[in-house]
Amino acid sequence: MSGKPTAASRLTISRITDDHDTNLMGTVHGGVLMKLVDSLAGVVSARHCEGPSVTVAVDEMVFLVPVRVGDVLHLHAQVNWTGNTSMEVGVRVTADRWDRSVPAVHVASAYVVLVAVDHDGRPRPVPPVVPDSAEDRRRRAEAEIRRTHRLARSRAIVASRTVGV
Amino acid sequence: MSGKPTAASRLTISRITDDHDTNLMGTVHGGVLMKLVDSLAGVVSARHCEGPSVTVAVDEMVFLVPVRVGDVLHLHAQVNWTGNTSMEVGVRVTADRWDRSVPAVHVASAYVVLVAVDHDGRPRPVPPVVPDSAEDRRRRAEAEIRRTHRLARSRAIVASRTVGV
Amino acid sequence: MSGKPTAASRLTISRITDDHDTNLMGTVHGGVLMKLVDSLAGVVSARHCEGPSVTVAVDEMVFLVPVRVGDVLHLHAQVNWTGNTSMEVGVRVTADRWDRSVPAVHVASAYVVLVAVDHDGRPRPVPPVVPDSAEDRRRRAEAEIRRTHRLARSRAIVASRTVGV
Amino acid sequence: MSGKPTAASRLTISRITDDHDTNLMGTVHGGVLMKLVDSLAGVVSARHCEGPSVTVAVDEMVFLVPVRVGDVLHLHAQVNWTGNTSMEVGVRVTADRWDRSVPAVHVASAYVVLVAVDHDGRPRPVPPVVPDSAEDRRRRAEAEIRRTHRLARSRAIVASRTVGV
Amino acid sequence: MSGKPTAASRLTISRITDDHDTNLMGTVHGGVLMKLVDSLAGVVSARHCEGPSVTVAVDEMVFLVPVRVGDVLHLHAQVNWTGNTSMEVGVRVTADRWDRSVPAVHVASAYVVLVAVDHDGRPRPVPPVVPDSAEDRRRRAEAEIRRTHRLARSRAIVASRTVGV
Amino acid sequence: MSGKPTAASRLTISRITDDHDTNLMGTVHGGVLMKLVDSLAGVVSARHCEGPSVTVAVDEMVFLVPVRVGDVLHLHAQVNWTGNTSMEVGVRVTADRWDRSVPAVHVASAYVVLVAVDHDGRPRPVPPVVPDSAEDRRRRAEAEIRRTHRLARSRAIVASRTVGV
Repeated sequence: MSGKPTAASRLTISRITDDHDTNLMGTVHGGVLMKLVDSLAGVVSARHCEGPSVTVAVDEMVFLVPVRVGDVLHLHAQVNWTGNTSMEVGVRVTADRWDRSVPAVHVASAYVVLVAVDHDGRPRPVPPVVPDSAEDRRRRAEAEIRRTHRLARSRAIVASRTVGV
Repeated sequence: MSGKPTAASRLTISRITDDHDTNLMGTVHGGVLMKLVDSLAGVVSARHCEGPSVTVAVDEMVFLVPVRVGDVLHLHAQVNWTGNTSMEVGVRVTADRWDRSVPAVHVASAYVVLVAVDHDGRPRPVPPVVPDSAEDRRRRAEAEIRRTHRLARSRAIVASRTVGV
Repeated sequence: MSGKPTAASRLTISRITDDHDTNLMGTVHGGVLMKLVDSLAGVVSARHCEGPSVTVAVDEMVFLVPVRVGDVLHLHAQVNWTGNTSMEVGVRVTADRWDRSVPAVHVASAYVVLVAVDHDGRPRPVPPVVPDSAEDRRRRAEAEIRRTHRLARSRAIVASRTVGV
Repeated sequence: MSGKPTAASRLTISRITDDHDTNLMGTVHGGVLMKLVDSLAGVVSARHCEGPSVTVAVDEMVFLVPVRVGDVLHLHAQVNWTGNTSMEVGVRVTADRWDRSVPAVHVASAYVVLVAVDHDGRPRPVPPVVPDSAEDRRRRAEAEIRRTHRLARSRAIVASRTVGV
Repeated sequence: MSGKPTAASRLTISRITDDHDTNLMGTVHGGVLMKLVDSLAGVVSARHCEGPSVTVAVDEMVFLVPVRVGDVLHLHAQVNWTGNTSMEVGVRVTADRWDRSVPAVHVASAYVVLVAVDHDGRPRPVPPVVPDSAEDRRRRAEAEIRRTHRLARSRAIVASRTVGV
Repeated sequence: MSGKPTAASRLTISRITDDHDTNLMGTVHGGVLMKLVDSLAGVVSARHCEGPSVTVAVDEMVFLVPVRVGDVLHLHAQVNWTGNTSMEVGVRVTADRWDRSVPAVHVASAYVVLVAVDHDGRPRPVPPVVPDSAEDRRRRAEAEIRRTHRLARSRAIVASRTVGV
């Protein structure tokens, strides 16, 4: 299967937050960001693999700065890495204060793993992503590191169960 | 600060899924589960630390089986691990088919890291969690493994940047 | 049709209330509780009669204590009584304050009458519910009393119309 | 306290139903009607008692005919009866098919009991409702019958508990 | 095609506003009114043309007075004008303060242009609207003026582009 | 008051449409677009006038092409024109098919008039907008044409009433 450039599926969505997005502390609910991240990762991966995909894991999602009501959120997403049937989509979330009195702030990041599926829900091959730039190559390398550590962590947890009991 | 048993903050919520929870494939949207997980982790951690807390990371969330409309979701959450000011809350999601024609299915798991904060948003100490059982001790040990790997992963990514450029 | 134990369809759902559930007085909207009650009664009756059912009446719903934002609601439901094609589902609603500073409070109760239907919407027979305990037998007896009074009330209202005009 | 005519607080609201109001059978969710009924009873009683009121019971709510997506719902509400601090609001729900191919259909009725409260939530006196017409007098008489039966039912249930155990 | 009186499709809907309808200034969001206007114009035009229609333009929508939470909105709509395949629906929005301490206020007006379509989405003829009263004839004349100015404006804008570049 | 360039307040938001945005014909509800347009115009005008503003009119909104579920909407907005206290914000809506199988489609346009207000809701002066380009000057000229026609239309309608009755 021939490769596909990162740019072919890269996508940014933006949203004005409002009073209905708040948690009990008056800032924007983490769940609101998670839902946007999941939807966006779904579209970006579907564009890359040209058909349906399903989320299998959020490998990591970090919340760096609280988002205030009235902030404009920008979510930038792209395919960082591809395996045989799986893809890692990275999502970077920034926020503009409503009056842009300060530069855009990096408020959250997430790494979502999805698998391309056929109409019976079985995994199917995905085209390899072809990085467009040094920045994209860095993202691919870091996705490899996340993957290596995810597998190592799973092995360590399984091992601890065998030993522990 | 004296310890606090796991049972003091453990909580299960349950929810009937409906037509308004679906993604474009007709199953329940991953973002719906994420939002429930985030709310529940917030309440469980607030009970443990007796005051406000903020989500700093979803360390890992895995989606094992698609959830169908009409399924009854059960989300079981507890504090697995505590540091000085941070807590890991584990959430296990199971689903009953509406007619319970098959046993409850384990559909997703998530590990959420939260920090206790004071009214100015600054970290404050949390009581150590005291496991109630062998099962709880196993969960604490696995949280330690996740934490170790999360820190190792961050170091590896930072190192790769220094080397790579 | 052979009987079916109460336990086979008994179900509890739980939900964290938030800022979006409030009425103009700042407490949780009665309509939010009603919607949860209706959904839950629908699932419990469908489990009992093994197929679709429709709500024909809320025989009585009482609101005992206001619910505050942040409270965790627990709705406990079971089939209290069965006729030929109809069922009474009782729902007891309790609330935990977010910090469980006081014991769970009984905030509302509802008695919902549903009829089992076939795919053309016509009533169909339901299995008799078999009480599991003295508590369940008490609930069945009280459902009979509600039913008797409901029928008597209807007769009294019809009679008043004949006399009154 | 001088009386107040029924017409002073009578109110009709109307709403177009849509795809987002459906239950799993494709018709409009009973909970959607319940929520509208509760909001409307709240406004009508607040107009009558000129200040805040709280719902204490839905004395009876019957669902007569399923509501289809696209139907236009009309909810007609008025204060049927007043006690010292409580009011019964009756709500009659009719539906127009979108093309009005058949006359408006009576789809549901509800009788809601509310209590006027002061700012500390304590009951306060309400003005007596003064029926405008024979129809209004009939509604008041029927509210009295419902009230009598509600009290009798409560006594019967309490008595059954004393005897039964 | 024989004409159809205005009264055959005229419709009023009413809605209680609540805390979830607000913008960042605490009054009811203009978008909430727009959504109600669009739904209502859709139903009124569908009744007139006896089948599906699509919105092609909001010719003008004016916001005269802010709407407060708790106000009861009334939206009155009718077909003001018909062409071969298009219709203008006028919507007048009034608001009652919750306690009706002041007379109903005219808060907004909108003029929506819709086209009747067949099942392939192609325009189809609509029956001419037959005004019921002098008031309806005035509304038709004003719709003609809006239409004349809309076409003149479009021509002026196109002309300015030819000249300007 | 010194002028402010168009670029200082220009903003694009983007949104993935889903199953919950649909009207009865299965395409995206016009009201969903209207609500997004209103929110976005509010933020853009607030950035330009550095404080609160209120929508006084949607001068024109046209719907050119139906939007399908799964399409990614992009809404591009800028201040086209300023008066003493009022601003016209133009919003251009385009849609990408989920797989970008065809180029982005222009699906709707809207012109919203807002007035800058102080904290008592009284109009306050706005800085003149300074067009950045020939394109921006064209937009300003067209806003002038819309304004001229809006005023002429109002005069014509008022005149018709005086004559007509």
